[in-house]
Amino acid sequence: MADVNDISPFVQRVWISLEVKGLSYQYIEVDPYKKPDELMRINPRGLIPALQHGGWGCYESSVLMEYLEDLNAGAPLLPQGDAKHRAHCRLWSDHISRKILPHFYGLLQAQENAKQIEEASELTSEIKKIVDAADPSGPFFLGPHISFVDIQFAPWIIRFRKVLMPYRGWPEPEDGSRWAHWVKAIENNEGVKATTSTDDLYIESYERYAGECSCGLH
Amino acid sequence: MADVNDISPFVQRVWISLEVKGLSYQYIEVDPYKKPDELMRINPRGLIPALQHGGWGCYESSVLMEYLEDLNAGAPLLPQGDAKHRAHCRLWSDHISRKILPHFYGLLQAQENAKQIEEASELTSEIKKIVDAADPSGPFFLGPHISFVDIQFAPWIIRFRKVLMPYRGWPEPEDGSRWAHWVKAIENNEGVKATTSTDDLYIESYERYAGECSCGLH
Repeated sequence: MADVNDISPFVQRVWISLEVKGLSYQYIEVDPYKKPDELMRINPRGLIPALQHGGWGCYESSVLMEYLEDLNAGAPLLPQGDAKHRAHCRLWSDHISRKILPHFYGLLQAQENAKQIEEASELTSEIKKIVDAADPSGPFFLGPHISFVDIQFAPWIIRFRKVLMPYRGWPEPEDGSRWAHWVKAIENNEGVKATTSTDDLYIESYERYAGECSCGLH
Repeated sequence: MADVNDISPFVQRVWISLEVKGLSYQYIEVDPYKKPDELMRINPRGLIPALQHGGWGCYESSVLMEYLEDLNAGAPLLPQGDAKHRAHCRLWSDHISRKILPHFYGLLQAQENAKQIEEASELTSEIKKIVDAADPSGPFFLGPHISFVDIQFAPWIIRFRKVLMPYRGWPEPEDGSRWAHWVKAIENNEGVKATTSTDDLYIESYERYAGECSCGLH
């Protein structure tokens, strides 16, 4: 279940996972001002994403991604039977949630120039760490195929171009860099494209975060 | 690897897991002012817990707990082959990290009475939710045996009595309640006891958090 009035990157994580795994699912949009009982039964906080499977339901994007993995159905997204590689993927997923995302939102919300520069610099530095931890040939985190870490990161990689670029002048990745290679692979992935909205919707959705903007689009 | 000058509840999570699983390990204390190269090689941030296994190393308590689970050695801590039950455990582990711990530290750091009351009330309410989600007979989260969620929570359950009680007047659990039953089972568990320090050390370690105290112990 997802929110009809906004695009949640946390919903997109689960949605891309379902697409890449090739599992069948029904996407249900929810009005945040009229949350259906169906959602409240799954998550008493009424937050999305929420997933219903048979009579059972659950929520939280990372928990749901692990759940889909544990079903052993469709394409696996974590390395199979290799505890060290699995830990490597979970460690860098944690890096995204705890080191990258706070600076993504920090930069988006920063109104003062000095604060924007500070947040952009921190964000760049934390991105560099995960790029250095990725498979050198790529284009994805573990090599030629999209997997767990890519999907954890993809919704924000998409939003670097669609949100941070117009609102905060976030730069294009440097031509030929490992980071450019990764961003392009994510942007061109079929599972990502199938779950991505039009550019206008992103600009509108993030206006309340970014506040006074200088993007020339309003 | 753990810190020689402090007791990290995050280290204790991994330590209890090793004890309960019955895996053999070496516990290495680290001086935070003289971090050994061995630790820096595993975690460039120099943070603990860090685990070395053969030539490979990793960090972050939740990632390490999943890693130990993926080894398929010793007693399993997550339900085996049941994706829904595993998701249930991960969901409530997430609740501990994101809903309970912030209020534990919030209460400990709060200096003003009104703020202490607010944090204590939030903490009580978030604990009630996880108690309601636990197996009704208990004493542990999933029933008679200690498992993943208990171990995620245990280091702070221990600190309710050892730190929040002397510093903030945190109350004894209500006699005969499900919560009292759970706390007692955690406090009496062999794996937990084997990894718990003396009371004095807790009081000293948390003094810098709790600031001016009224515990009568100083």
